[in-house]
Amino acid sequence: MKENELRIFCPATIANVSCGFDVLGAALDSVGDEMVVRKVPEKGIKITKLVGQDLPMETNQNVAGVAGLALLAESGSNEGFEIEIYKKIKAGSGIGSSAASSTGAVWAINDLLGRPFSTLELVKFAMEGERLASGVAHADNVAPALFGGFTLVRSYEPLDVIPIHSPSELYATVIHPQIEVRTSDSRKILKTHINLADGIKQWGNLGGLVAGLYTEDYDLIGRSLVDHIVEPIRSILIPGFDKIKSVSKEAGALGSGISGSGPSIFAFSKGEATAQKVGEAMKQVYQKIGIDYDVHVSKINSQGIKILQ
Amino acid sequence: MKENELRIFCPATIANVSCGFDVLGAALDSVGDEMVVRKVPEKGIKITKLVGQDLPMETNQNVAGVAGLALLAESGSNEGFEIEIYKKIKAGSGIGSSAASSTGAVWAINDLLGRPFSTLELVKFAMEGERLASGVAHADNVAPALFGGFTLVRSYEPLDVIPIHSPSELYATVIHPQIEVRTSDSRKILKTHINLADGIKQWGNLGGLVAGLYTEDYDLIGRSLVDHIVEPIRSILIPGFDKIKSVSKEAGALGSGISGSGPSIFAFSKGEATAQKVGEAMKQVYQKIGIDYDVHVSKINSQGIKILQ
Repeated sequence: MKENELRIFCPATIANVSCGFDVLGAALDSVGDEMVVRKVPEKGIKITKLVGQDLPMETNQNVAGVAGLALLAESGSNEGFEIEIYKKIKAGSGIGSSAASSTGAVWAINDLLGRPFSTLELVKFAMEGERLASGVAHADNVAPALFGGFTLVRSYEPLDVIPIHSPSELYATVIHPQIEVRTSDSRKILKTHINLADGIKQWGNLGGLVAGLYTEDYDLIGRSLVDHIVEPIRSILIPGFDKIKSVSKEAGALGSGISGSGPSIFAFSKGEATAQKVGEAMKQVYQKIGIDYDVHVSKINSQGIKILQ
Repeated sequence: MKENELRIFCPATIANVSCGFDVLGAALDSVGDEMVVRKVPEKGIKITKLVGQDLPMETNQNVAGVAGLALLAESGSNEGFEIEIYKKIKAGSGIGSSAASSTGAVWAINDLLGRPFSTLELVKFAMEGERLASGVAHADNVAPALFGGFTLVRSYEPLDVIPIHSPSELYATVIHPQIEVRTSDSRKILKTHINLADGIKQWGNLGGLVAGLYTEDYDLIGRSLVDHIVEPIRSILIPGFDKIKSVSKEAGALGSGISGSGPSIFAFSKGEATAQKVGEAMKQVYQKIGIDYDVHVSKINSQGIKILQ
């Protein structure tokens, strides 16, 4: 590898994670994009390749470009960078496609500049990519992509991201039914008010999930993966959702839910073998309904973005 | 001590704990009641002494009596017990006065019967005492009194209590302004619906608090002790509340909030010296207003109920 160039793996991420709506996220290990970021003499940022998805390449229309520019503006640097993006995550699938690109850009540029910024600062720059992608500068995908493992976005003002311990045998299975659900649509159908009683259940479950992650209590993780607020509403947009949940449970999954704003559905399992079995069971549901799908099985990635040789 | 008799310490408890409304609680170490529970030939339960508070002594009107009877009914035992209660926690103060009595009864009776029941089962019996005291069989005081430390009541159906790690240097300061706020009143003024946006902040903070407790990150514990839902409403019933909060913070407290349904106010600090300073600052507020008060400073009790020699 050349000195002024980085080839990196940018992980897919599961946001919301059931009871953790808008605050929790987790990074995947074997699902993600690749990017090459290269220092060049010409100032600014140029997207020189974008393979695998039909997305805009103009710097200020591309999430990696916008996130990178936010970093450069703050750094006062006069350097220039070329970015090649090899998309393997499908846009709109609900596993953080835009977050992978924007975090990859800021992580690599920061590294090539000699790391002037902290990981938390990188989250802020990457959030500008999310603002471009969805209209909302949310952090629940970019935070786990940058920190790795599970992250809790405790607060936005000021931004406070808490990395949460990830049990070593925790695996995710994600199935992506090839239907389109726009983030803006799936946000629109949410209610602005909730029952206090449902809220209490939700923060009880989130507390249980965080405790289960720290104590590596897989059973507690499973019991806590219940969403009383968002899943009952959003799952209506996802065909076969209830069936996918029930077959996952029967195949041994700890629990399951909507990944991000959907349409992907995730399940957590203890151990890879169970996660694979869950994937097989999920597949059969969509094969019967006749919906195309992708299935991913991955360990939770504790590192975040990784340099590839 | 006689073979068929136990003298025990029954801890005061802080329920709700700011962002943990209706799910979180913590046990105190140096504030609590004493009880003597004695096996006697006569079947059933008799409250033979009740010192320090004016409370009913008829078994089925007394929280310790009712909780003990719930245990005996389930056990099918023909044994009988006498209970002496030495109240040091004031009823209605918001630090689990009824929970101390009901948990003490079931813990000691279970011990004298050879421990047929698990701690979780004891929580269920003690909840019957809470039902008598407040009309609601809540567990957020009785769970920490029985398990010790911090506990999360993740769910009621089925009952799921999660003991949460307590950092070793965590101290509580509690001030009890001697005004009456009935639990039923302070529950009545709560709204049945909340903003989703406030809910998200609340479960973000609860997740942060649980993470802070496990990682012994005192600063994170402090940042997470924010209640967007209940405190803004209930604090109206507590004179000087905002001032108590601000002087606590200035004196070095990590954070503060309403203990249970009030009127007591708690603050957490790192180390006993700071917790004492916080107590002094709190006192001055009520001295100025002219309200009588009690102040307690205590380590978080990791053991729960303790046998006294």
